[in-house]
Amino acid sequence: MQTSYHSAQLTLDLVGVFVFALSGGLVAVKKGFDLFGVLVLAVAAALGGGILRDVLIGDVPPVGISDWRLLTAAGLGGLVTFVHHPGVERISRFVRVLDAMGLAAFAVAGSLKAVTLGVEPIASVLVGVTTAVGGGVIRDLLAGQVPEVLRRELYALPAMLGSIVVVVAGELGPLSDWVLWGSVALVFGLRILAVRLDLNAPRPLRTGGDPR
Amino acid sequence: MQTSYHSAQLTLDLVGVFVFALSGGLVAVKKGFDLFGVLVLAVAAALGGGILRDVLIGDVPPVGISDWRLLTAAGLGGLVTFVHHPGVERISRFVRVLDAMGLAAFAVAGSLKAVTLGVEPIASVLVGVTTAVGGGVIRDLLAGQVPEVLRRELYALPAMLGSIVVVVAGELGPLSDWVLWGSVALVFGLRILAVRLDLNAPRPLRTGGDPR
Amino acid sequence: MQTSYHSAQLTLDLVGVFVFALSGGLVAVKKGFDLFGVLVLAVAAALGGGILRDVLIGDVPPVGISDWRLLTAAGLGGLVTFVHHPGVERISRFVRVLDAMGLAAFAVAGSLKAVTLGVEPIASVLVGVTTAVGGGVIRDLLAGQVPEVLRRELYALPAMLGSIVVVVAGELGPLSDWVLWGSVALVFGLRILAVRLDLNAPRPLRTGGDPR
Repeated sequence: MQTSYHSAQLTLDLVGVFVFALSGGLVAVKKGFDLFGVLVLAVAAALGGGILRDVLIGDVPPVGISDWRLLTAAGLGGLVTFVHHPGVERISRFVRVLDAMGLAAFAVAGSLKAVTLGVEPIASVLVGVTTAVGGGVIRDLLAGQVPEVLRRELYALPAMLGSIVVVVAGELGPLSDWVLWGSVALVFGLRILAVRLDLNAPRPLRTGGDPR
Repeated sequence: MQTSYHSAQLTLDLVGVFVFALSGGLVAVKKGFDLFGVLVLAVAAALGGGILRDVLIGDVPPVGISDWRLLTAAGLGGLVTFVHHPGVERISRFVRVLDAMGLAAFAVAGSLKAVTLGVEPIASVLVGVTTAVGGGVIRDLLAGQVPEVLRRELYALPAMLGSIVVVVAGELGPLSDWVLWGSVALVFGLRILAVRLDLNAPRPLRTGGDPR
Repeated sequence: MQTSYHSAQLTLDLVGVFVFALSGGLVAVKKGFDLFGVLVLAVAAALGGGILRDVLIGDVPPVGISDWRLLTAAGLGGLVTFVHHPGVERISRFVRVLDAMGLAAFAVAGSLKAVTLGVEPIASVLVGVTTAVGGGVIRDLLAGQVPEVLRRELYALPAMLGSIVVVVAGELGPLSDWVLWGSVALVFGLRILAVRLDLNAPRPLRTGGDPR
């Protein structure tokens, strides 16, 4: 079982890191940054969520800065977007899909690691959500745009649902790979559905403020 | 004494969390965010200062993500602002007052926790200030505005004075509730005074720069 | 040897803190902030990199908030820029040079501390880079501008090269002051060269995006 934990954890981390690196790189390309700007934003977006997770649960130094496989995946993602990226007008759409994949992988990777290390249930769910949204928030703050998580469509909710499934399943018994990858599919599916159907959460009444 | 510590700590944390959740929610409403944007900004503003505090003093996972009472207070604050908020033109004023209350509660909650855990005096004062200004800084960064602490009026100074009172009193003997709530009143009073009297700190000579 | 470590570490930290305080203060002056805004931005820029370093390697509370010498250097730097600063049109150039000095001192201070505490090599390099770029990123985020590290010229690369030299030399034997100050000179020289020659990293093909 411990082996299964370990392999799923690494795979989820690698997937999340790579797709968030692609998303970070694409945002940097869109902003017109140079090679190192692209690499830095890719690496920050890729490793940010996992580093926040590890700092929150006290597992330092974070694997994001100590495991060469994650670093390689992050750098590779940045390089790929620099060399081969779609036209700018198509970048935003790509970022959305990659972002949904990273959100799904990291929500499960974050809550899984917290549960495995014995963090209590509520905190494990929030660690999962933080892992999932952290990289994107760091990417958007560095690039000077309002974080995705605060914009229109349902974003944090799918990550929270996926984390809850992992934590509840972990309370009931050993976590199987089926549960983990099922949770990843759940988060990804819900997020993509929200984007496709333009499902927005309700907005406050009587605003008329300065929406951005 | 330990009981008194504990109860005052929890009360201060709850007050700070709730009022910063209101302030975060109001900023989100003003920016036209949807329900989840409002909740996310409320929770980030409410829990950010305490999470920074706990990471700085090594008390992980932070109580902000593990104690259901703080989480409930944060979520409730966000929900309240979403459902029932004043007109946009009055939000800024409300945010200022709530912000002053959160600043006061968190300055004392932060320095109190640091002193209680045996952190040395200078660090305890700065942990108090970081706890106090952290949530507001995170709120403003996420919402895309220059943090309150960098704008015109005296902001960090009242928090620092309150933290110093707590730390010095803690060095002299066991901390009574009178000292703690007196410090809260001191920070709140000084901050509100600065806002009301439009008391500004001196500005640099010969600038003529690009003020914002 | 331990004494040499310690003295070099403190000197590097002090130099980095003081020059980043100057750079943070100058950015605040340029933005038209008041005295406390200048002090806060100076302190945040000065201590941010070292605090990130210490949180990442688990040395909490960070020396940045517990050592009065670093705090004094940070406050002094802020005060100096407030009282005596060049005309606004010359500030940007000054910030670039100070930034290069801070980058150099902190890249070596960060990787040195990580190596000394037994952090593995790859993580030590990244801790060095994070220490070096962290203060500037925090300064720029707070001031509402795109971080230097993402703009045109080679920025993170010199810091990474300097950190690699420190880490490799630390693997080969005890670190001498010559290696440490040589690495500082290397990072500073490369960074200044990049600024002077306007050496830019390559930019993505087919962008035509919205450069800023």
